[in-house]
Amino acid sequence: MSQPLSLWNDAPVRQAILDFVGAVTTPGSPDFVPSVERIAVFDNDGTLWCEKPLYIQLDYLLRKLAVQAESDPALRNRQPWQAAWEKDYHWLGSTVTKHYKGDDAQLQVLLEGILALSTGQAVERIEAEARDFVDCVRHPSLNLIYRDCIYTPMLELLRYLEANGFRNYIVSAGGRDFMRGFVQQLYGIPRERVIGSTVAYRYLESGNSGEILQRAKLESIADGPGKPIQIWHLIGRRPILAAGNTNGDLEMLAFSGGDKRPALCLLVVHDDAEREFAYQAGAEKVLRLAQRRGWTKVSMKSDFKQIFSYDRE
Amino acid sequence: MSQPLSLWNDAPVRQAILDFVGAVTTPGSPDFVPSVERIAVFDNDGTLWCEKPLYIQLDYLLRKLAVQAESDPALRNRQPWQAAWEKDYHWLGSTVTKHYKGDDAQLQVLLEGILALSTGQAVERIEAEARDFVDCVRHPSLNLIYRDCIYTPMLELLRYLEANGFRNYIVSAGGRDFMRGFVQQLYGIPRERVIGSTVAYRYLESGNSGEILQRAKLESIADGPGKPIQIWHLIGRRPILAAGNTNGDLEMLAFSGGDKRPALCLLVVHDDAEREFAYQAGAEKVLRLAQRRGWTKVSMKSDFKQIFSYDRE
Repeated sequence: MSQPLSLWNDAPVRQAILDFVGAVTTPGSPDFVPSVERIAVFDNDGTLWCEKPLYIQLDYLLRKLAVQAESDPALRNRQPWQAAWEKDYHWLGSTVTKHYKGDDAQLQVLLEGILALSTGQAVERIEAEARDFVDCVRHPSLNLIYRDCIYTPMLELLRYLEANGFRNYIVSAGGRDFMRGFVQQLYGIPRERVIGSTVAYRYLESGNSGEILQRAKLESIADGPGKPIQIWHLIGRRPILAAGNTNGDLEMLAFSGGDKRPALCLLVVHDDAEREFAYQAGAEKVLRLAQRRGWTKVSMKSDFKQIFSYDRE
Repeated sequence: MSQPLSLWNDAPVRQAILDFVGAVTTPGSPDFVPSVERIAVFDNDGTLWCEKPLYIQLDYLLRKLAVQAESDPALRNRQPWQAAWEKDYHWLGSTVTKHYKGDDAQLQVLLEGILALSTGQAVERIEAEARDFVDCVRHPSLNLIYRDCIYTPMLELLRYLEANGFRNYIVSAGGRDFMRGFVQQLYGIPRERVIGSTVAYRYLESGNSGEILQRAKLESIADGPGKPIQIWHLIGRRPILAAGNTNGDLEMLAFSGGDKRPALCLLVVHDDAEREFAYQAGAEKVLRLAQRRGWTKVSMKSDFKQIFSYDRE
């Protein structure tokens, strides 16, 4: 029999995971949790797969905006189409920087262009596009197809938790309908266990059945306090294991366990410039809280034996 | 081994259910559906338990309004508190009648009073109250505790479907947080498989964890086209079996199956004035469509051997 978590270095973090799972699954243990309540929640971008130099879904959306600007030249002088068309990473980068500083005006402009893409789109079509996208498009610097940008030790953790009676959910600020296109194939997580940001829907009667179409209107944002809120809407249970990597995961981590249950909170730290990326922007607050609360920091450099399935190691 | 669906009379409806389940579960059958896609959705009020003379949750809410009027006399001259305090079933009845005729002004007044009850309520508290309510309060005319107002042949159907690899969901216009209080105990359906109307939430940091509080604001209504819309939000799969009893279930029934899948659509018909109630108000449109589309009408009088577990039969 193979060792559990073989892609994790034999260090305190791996041991903390093994100990926690042992405690909650051992009948009679003071920390025992019945299987039905073993809910594990995972952020996606930066926790299960790469989020740099830009969110993978953002790459997909910008390419769609560029296609629109291709066929309608009037859009080429208007943001966000202009940035998408000119591949103006400076404008895009400054959107994120300004957002971190609390100025969301530019983000709003970007969001409106992105939301307009949803108008009248059939949900099945978005999923098919997402699947094709991650299957075919390459990461700009890692020399990997996007589908191979997932962190294999985290994938191994998903399987290990499942084998121990956990149900894994993705809880991401990314688009829920986009993620549904590939979560089963990439992560082995069924589509009903994906919590994400969503646009509103329209129900369209058609023939003998009916169709669900997207509308250009945000319905919910699964970020920050939106994460525990959406967890309660969709699951109605407090997770006992949560993994994230930015300030947007802070409330989800804090919500896990609660006063009556044990919880393992994992914070993935991007500190491996050689194999992936090294950055802390957007994670300052959650890093401080992790320190204070004794959450488990996962160093990609020290804890992951390999990162991607195509590491040459 | 006991016969499946023993509480159903040996008539065409029982046979239709057995045939459908046989067809979708037999490998190699042209209608075979893999277990992961065997989603069954059930309306609650009037489909799984009684909805007359008034919705059980409405009885719960009116009693809460009456308690408020008890401690604040100023509320006793103001709707909906006045009706709740005076037990004015005429005002309440006319709210529903007007709603069926397309006039929702009075419903709006009722709804505002009800929504105000949610302000700052912890979700766990609502659930505990709901559990106590159905465990203790008696139906006004049936001589049954509310928890015993469930239709036992439908309960048997839930278990039969589960045994055949289906996952059952409740999809009701009733309050989701209210239903979560008792769905496991009454129906054996886990809390994450309840879709219902919801108020918005607020996340409150507290100590080392956080709390989810209700707000006095409707977030989604799982009725009419809202049913398939919420099914897609929460499950992301088309049901292959759907059961309802009013016009509010029409779109959910029509959405099931779709163009590529078989589907069994059940319409519970309230035609048993002796053992339960006989009424068609609010179901006229769905009854016509059922006729046209060949949906399966379940006659409570002819198809149910018994209705409640305390029938004297």
